[in-house]
Formats: sequence, C-alpha cells, structure tokens
Amino acid sequence: MTETVSSLAALLGGRVVGNGSQPIVGVADLRMAGADRIGFVRDVKYRDAARATKLGALIVYEELDTQAAQIVVADVGLAFAKVALHFHPVPRAKQHSIHPTATVHPEARLEAPVEIGPNAVVGKVVVGAGTVIMAGAFVGDGTKIGRDCVLYPRVVCYHGLSLGDRVVIHAGAVIGSDGFGYARDGAKWTKVPQLGSVRIDDDVEIGANCTIDRGAIGDTKIGARTKIDNLCHFGHNCVVGEDCAFAGATFVAGSTVFGDRVTMAGHVAIAGHRKIGDDVRVGGNSCVLFDVEEAGDYMGYPLVEKRKWIRLMAAQRDLLELQEQVEGLRRAIEGGGNGSNPKA
Amino acid sequence: MTETVSSLAALLGGRVVGNGSQPIVGVADLRMAGADRIGFVRDVKYRDAARATKLGALIVYEELDTQAAQIVVADVGLAFAKVALHFHPVPRAKQHSIHPTATVHPEARLEAPVEIGPNAVVGKVVVGAGTVIMAGAFVGDGTKIGRDCVLYPRVVCYHGLSLGDRVVIHAGAVIGSDGFGYARDGAKWTKVPQLGSVRIDDDVEIGANCTIDRGAIGDTKIGARTKIDNLCHFGHNCVVGEDCAFAGATFVAGSTVFGDRVTMAGHVAIAGHRKIGDDVRVGGNSCVLFDVEEAGDYMGYPLVEKRKWIRLMAAQRDLLELQEQVEGLRRAIEGGGNGSNPKA
Amino acid sequence: MTETVSSLAALLGGRVVGNGSQPIVGVADLRMAGADRIGFVRDVKYRDAARATKLGALIVYEELDTQAAQIVVADVGLAFAKVALHFHPVPRAKQHSIHPTATVHPEARLEAPVEIGPNAVVGKVVVGAGTVIMAGAFVGDGTKIGRDCVLYPRVVCYHGLSLGDRVVIHAGAVIGSDGFGYARDGAKWTKVPQLGSVRIDDDVEIGANCTIDRGAIGDTKIGARTKIDNLCHFGHNCVVGEDCAFAGATFVAGSTVFGDRVTMAGHVAIAGHRKIGDDVRVGGNSCVLFDVEEAGDYMGYPLVEKRKWIRLMAAQRDLLELQEQVEGLRRAIEGGGNGSNPKA
Repeated sequence: MTETVSSLAALLGGRVVGNGSQPIVGVADLRMAGADRIGFVRDVKYRDAARATKLGALIVYEELDTQAAQIVVADVGLAFAKVALHFHPVPRAKQHSIHPTATVHPEARLEAPVEIGPNAVVGKVVVGAGTVIMAGAFVGDGTKIGRDCVLYPRVVCYHGLSLGDRVVIHAGAVIGSDGFGYARDGAKWTKVPQLGSVRIDDDVEIGANCTIDRGAIGDTKIGARTKIDNLCHFGHNCVVGEDCAFAGATFVAGSTVFGDRVTMAGHVAIAGHRKIGDDVRVGGNSCVLFDVEEAGDYMGYPLVEKRKWIRLMAAQRDLLELQEQVEGLRRAIEGGGNGSNPKA
Repeated sequence: MTETVSSLAALLGGRVVGNGSQPIVGVADLRMAGADRIGFVRDVKYRDAARATKLGALIVYEELDTQAAQIVVADVGLAFAKVALHFHPVPRAKQHSIHPTATVHPEARLEAPVEIGPNAVVGKVVVGAGTVIMAGAFVGDGTKIGRDCVLYPRVVCYHGLSLGDRVVIHAGAVIGSDGFGYARDGAKWTKVPQLGSVRIDDDVEIGANCTIDRGAIGDTKIGARTKIDNLCHFGHNCVVGEDCAFAGATFVAGSTVFGDRVTMAGHVAIAGHRKIGDDVRVGGNSCVLFDVEEAGDYMGYPLVEKRKWIRLMAAQRDLLELQEQVEGLRRAIEGGGNGSNPKA
Repeated sequence: MTETVSSLAALLGGRVVGNGSQPIVGVADLRMAGADRIGFVRDVKYRDAARATKLGALIVYEELDTQAAQIVVADVGLAFAKVALHFHPVPRAKQHSIHPTATVHPEARLEAPVEIGPNAVVGKVVVGAGTVIMAGAFVGDGTKIGRDCVLYPRVVCYHGLSLGDRVVIHAGAVIGSDGFGYARDGAKWTKVPQLGSVRIDDDVEIGANCTIDRGAIGDTKIGARTKIDNLCHFGHNCVVGEDCAFAGATFVAGSTVFGDRVTMAGHVAIAGHRKIGDDVRVGGNSCVLFDVEEAGDYMGYPLVEKRKWIRLMAAQRDLLELQEQVEGLRRAIEGGGNGSNPKA
C-alpha cells in the first residue's frame, strides 16, 4: 500500500510542511532510515533527532527544523497510531478458507468469508464474516462470534459464549471456563455448576493467557471497546463497562461491577462483589478491597488517593525513624519534661 | 431429565411446602421465569423477590410467602449446588470415542469408555473409564489418569504424572512443567534437571491456565478434593493437603507444605520452603513469608491475624497524621514542656 | 548410559573416596535406594542420612562416614546439577522427523535433524538442527529458531521472532503477542499496532504460560542465559540482560531495561520505563516503582534495602502500638508535662 504525505495528512486532518507528494509505504522509528517511511516526534526532547532523521516524513506536534516532510497534528501519538493501523490493519478474513486439518461442526454457521487455521476446532457455532480463527483455537458449541474478530492461536472459548464484532483475543486466553464456585459440605467442597456465560461486546481486545470465567447463573460481561492486557483474570459474574483498560496481571475476583472508562495500571488485585465507578483510575500493584465510587486516581494498599499514596510510601519508608523519634520523646518526657531536645 | 419438587426434596433431605408433584427440569435465578425451574432464596433480603418469583419452585431456608413450591433445607447454598449438579453433572465419557484427528500412542491403555477429542495428543498412558480428554489436550508418556476425569481443551500434562479419579483440569493449565531449579556456576546458571513428578489426588479441580511444576527429585502433590482457581502457580515439591481452596492468581514458590482445609482468598503470594498448618485461612492479596502453623484467619503483608490487619490498614492510612502528631509533640516539648496542647 | 564413580569424578573435577569403579546409571535422593545411583549431601545436617544411605555413591562437600563411594567437590549443588544433566539432558532432535499431523509451511527451512510433533503448526520459518517442536506448538511466519531449542507442547511463537540456540520454552508460553499499546481518542482507545519483534538470545529458558510481548516499533529482548519461571509477563520493549533469573508470576510493564545478573524472587511487579542495574536482586512480592541502579538486595513495597525491609515489616506490625505510644505521650504532655510515665 502506497500513500503520500498529503494523503496521510488528509487521513489525519493534519497540516503538511514540505514535500506532500513524498510516497510513504510504512512507519518507522525516528532513528531508523527510509525515505518512504514516516516516523513521529511527540516531544521537544527529540528535536535534535528530528533534525538528523533519515526518514522521509514525520508526524510532529509543531513545525520542526528537519529535511523530512512533516504533518503537524494536535495529538501525535493518536495520529501515529492511525497511520500505523492504516499500514498494518488488524487481521481480517478476506477469502473464505477452512484449513483441511481444522475440525468444524457440520452445522456451524460460518458467514463467508471466514478463515479457520490448521488444527482449529470449531463446534456448532455462529461466526460472522471477516473473522479469523487461527491455528489450534477452540470454540465450543453454542458460541456466537461476530464479524471481523480475531482468535489468535490456541485461544479457548468454551460453549455458549457471545462475542461481538471486532473482538480480538490473543493466544492462550481462555474464555468461559468455570467460575470458582463451591459450597461447603462439612469439611468438603461441593461444586456449584457454573451455568451462566460470558458476553464480550464489540471492539474488546483481550491479552495472551488471560482467563475470563463464565457466570454462575447470569453472565460475565466485558463492555464495548474495553482493552485487557496479558495474564488478567476476571471471576464469574464480573460486569465491566465500556472503554476500560486493564493492564497486565490484574486479578478481579467474582461479581465485581465496573463503570465506564475505568483503568487499572497492572498487577492490581480487586476483591469480589465490589462496585468501581466510572472514570476510576488505579495505579499499578494496588489492591482494591472496598467500593470505589468516585472518579479519580487511586493507588496502593490500603487504596487511597494517588497523591496521598506517594506521601504514604515516603512515610512508610521513614517508619523506623518515626519509631526512634517517639522513643526519643518518651525519654525526654520521662527524663523530666524539661524541654531538652528529644532529637538529641 | 425431569424431576419433581418431591424427588428433589428427597435428594436434599428437605421438607416440601406446596405442590410436590411440580415437574422440574432445571435451575434458574430467582428473577428468571419458568414453572419447571427451581431457584433459591438464601437470605431474608430476597423475601420480596421470592414473593414475586415466576419460578415453579424455590429452595428456601424457611417457609416463605410465595406461590412457588418450596423445599426447606438447612443449607440453601449447598442444596442448590446439589440440585444444579444433578441437572448439570460434570462431563463424563459415556461411549468410547477417539476423534479421528486425535493422536493416541498405540500402547496407550484406555479403559473404555474414554472420550478423546479432536487434535488431542495422548502418549503411552493409562486412562480410566469415564474420562474425557478434550480437543487439543496433551498427555505425555507414562502419565496415569484415573476414572471420570476431565481435561478441558489445550490442557498440557507432561510425562510421568499421576492423576486420581474425578480430577478436573480447565483449559490451558500446564501440569508437570519443569520446576525452576538452577545452580550457580560463577555468573551463569546451570539447569538442575527436574526428575520428580506431580501427583494429583481424587476430586481435585484445577483452574484455567494454572501451572503446577514437577518435583526436582520427589513429587509435587495436590491432596484430595482440593480446588485451585485460575492462573495459580505451585512450584516444585509443594505438598498440598486435602480439602484446600486456592482462589485465583495465587503464587506458591517451591517446597512449601500445606495442611488440610487451607484456604487462600486470591492473589496471595507464598514463599518457598514454608509450612502452613491445617485450617489456616489467608485473606486476599496477602504475602506469606513465614510458617503459619496455627489455624485461624490471617491477612496482609506483613501477614498478621485478619482482625489486626483491618486495624493495621486503618493505621497505615493514618500514618501522615501520626507523623504530624509526633512532630507536634516534639515542638511542644522543645517549646518548654509546659503542657501546652501539642495538637494545637 | 552407564558411568562409574571415577568417570563422574573426572567430569566434575572431584576427588574419589572409596570404590571408583562402582557403576552409576542415574541420580537419586539420599533417602532412596540403589547401588547404581548417585545422590548428594550438601550439608552437615544430612550426615546421619549419609551414613544410612542405600545409594551406591554420594557427591559430598567433605569426606563422610558412609559405605557409599564419594566424590568430594567444592560446590555440591552445582556438581549434582551437572551429573543429573549428564543422565537427563535437555531434549534434542536426533533424527529428522515431522509428525504426519503437523502442518509445516512448504517453504520452511528446517536444518535436519529437527523433530516436529503431532498437530504442531510451523509457518515459513527457519529452524536450526537439533531443535524439538512439540505437539501443538505454533510458530508464525518469519520466525527464526536456532539450534537445539525445545518448544514444549502448545507454545505459541507469533510471526517474525528471533530465538537463539538452546532456547527452551515451556508449555503454554506465548511469545510475541501484541504489546498493550493504545492511544486515547477522546473517551475511546485506538490501537497502536505493535510492529516490533521479540529477540531471545542463546540458552534462555522460559516457563509455562509466560507471556512476552513484541515491541511497539523496536524489539523486546531477553539476554543470553536468562531464566524465567512460570506465569511471568514482560511488556513491549523490555530489554533484559544476561544471566538474569525471574521467579514465578513476576510482572514487568513495558520498556523497562534490566542489566545483567538481575534476580527477582517471585511475584514481583515492576513498573514500566524503569532502569534496573547489574546485580540488582529483589526479594519476593516486591514492587519496583522507581529506577534501581545500584547492585544489592532490595525488597518490599515501597522498595528498600532488604535488611531495612525486614525491620520495616516489624515496624509495620507494631504500628498500632506506636499509635498508642504517641497517644500516651500526648496525654502525658497535656496532663502537665510532669514526667509521669507515658507508657502507663
């Protein structure tokens, strides 16, 4: 695919500086080379690198001193993402093809074109046009997959799930496994069958080796456009809103409900049966034990406002000194309360 | 399968109120509809919902005001689990079937009936009757699997393992991978071959994408009826007792020994070479660095009694105020020790 | 394979005590039996067990009172690892074999001998001699795998990766999945295509169900001889040095750079865009939020020197008592600053 600086500027609604007719065939890092490649400069600190670049074009936040053609935009990161996606779109099925080693249920309803890779196992399902099911993926009976989805190799979707359009699931993720439900029978555990399902809305992306359990009776739900990084877990009956982002290794116990635009910054643990409001943002390595209803930035364990956590960490680091100060005060008071310096 | 309220009451040892001959074909949530479905009310707060229910029957903790037939039992949660399991039993092989795309070693000893799904790979193993090995699962040479087990899609069991009866392993779990053993050779690591195995006893259930490493020389062992949630890890030579429960994303380093009826509430990290006694219960997001021999409820990092942790979290949240108080006291003492209010 | 005590002593550079011509066919635990097996005694506390051993030979740190032949070495653990590896080498392809159920791209370049297992899917790749690709593994187009590597069952290597020689990847690990990169577009996330790759150098071992994301534009890199335990995650553009060790469930956000000989002791969370220097060692369950440039032992959250963390944990455990002491001091001062015992 060949574009020009001008055609890309039109895509971005940006302003061209320099040679708009420069052909562009792909993106690159500022420090790479290629007259037919476009890079980006997000920040004044890369000004010198921009001047020295061997790329043919740059997406920039303001006009810079460089031989490269430039596209000036308001949001460089977003603009670069759009150009990169233009050259490297998410995989889509273009012609109907089922690999001869795939096992597809004779009553599966595949809306052509669908691509099914080697050794994939697809039950009695419904799959929308444009969807790619890669090598070794498994889709259980009764699951419905929308259009233009991508299941990367070795993804497992259990039975009876519902995926919207343009859902992307990375390798090794398991969707619809049994929730962790047991009832005590004296000293023993009796399994509570997990009879609900998982509903994943449009444009959700799920990372490698994640696990999202099916609901106990109702469904586990992931709202539209929510993005989930690798090795995250969502327990049964969680309900996640729209436009959320969960960074890697975030663990959510069952039945917790999230609003929209929630972000978790990685390695966060969230208790079950909690309510997390819209626009709650939690810093990395935090633990959410209680409801967090009000929008804002939170962090730590115990979870507090992020700014407070920064101060609390410093206080925790100084805890030995605080103990010493208290001991000094005690000695000063016991020694006569005479105002001698308790720090001495 | 059709039952009646009375036949289910007999199964549960419960007391029938209302129409015992009401046919029941499945379970449902209280707020769903269906004259042939049975739901449950565990708690007084669902009394109004019980009155309005459109289900044909309810399992209840006491007789309620409702049109639905009722089965009164002592433990509603357990009773509902039993009824749900009755209608939705764990998968079992009923007729011997090996999918033509499966690869089974010619000397594998399969006690009919066994079901082996598409693209499963089964080495020179022993498999008991009733066991289901689903699509794409892998079982290495020398592994012995008992009766009525379920290996969900893409489960990997390395070579030489031993699984009891009715063991259930969810998709993507890996059993018997090498323990993390290396010896320092100057600045370099030399691998210590992991020559032990994994022994999983009867009625264990293991969640999706868990990893349980084989022992270094001896075996890693998971005791009977223990339940393990998704994305948990057990290092080499761990020995887990019976009737334990490990909620999701719990990480156990090598050689730690657990008693019976231990519970970990999710996202708990446990150091290696520790001893955890019978009936130890650890709250979520805790870190177990030292032995915990005495039964009881623990939580936090540092791990303390759960009740104390609740108070410690409050104290941690108030640490900045404590620092200010100490600073106020210091000023009061330095200012003359005259008894002026150090809070002022 | 049969050795003798003397031939093994030569391999180890150790000194023989007793019957050097004793044949040895394998290793065993000190408490097992077998005249043709060799065990080890690392420590004075196993002296009695050494005296009672039924093994034919022992690797020992000094000459012991035992009937077994002995090999005296300086580093028992390392010597045992070497002997065990001698009898149980890492799997290597000895004869070229592609299982008939494997799907191999016709233009894949396989340097014989390579072993490819059942249902493996291998794209247009380059694979070096001696490499074993086990059942159900997936290798995407453009990936280059060196010599004597092992991909255990169900490993997924996305497209365009580069693996050195003797790289071992355990079951279920996913290498080269998309990094977690999105640009905000108002309330929505726009995907940033992940166009870099993953480069894994010689002698790296990666545990079961790990995930290592490809770089955004540049590459994610894992340095030579680095060992990674199960369920670890490395985000896009991380650069890991040589001879590092990451114990299980360690989570590394994107773009963090590690020096050489770094160790993380398990369940450690590491923020993105950080710099971790050579010989930094971090204890289990820690959180690394900031750069750690200086070599040494660190632990905790907030991360401090390990010795300090041990004391900080004790102080945290005593926080309620500290609050009480401060309250006692306040009362003592308010009560007249008369030197009465504030502890009373």
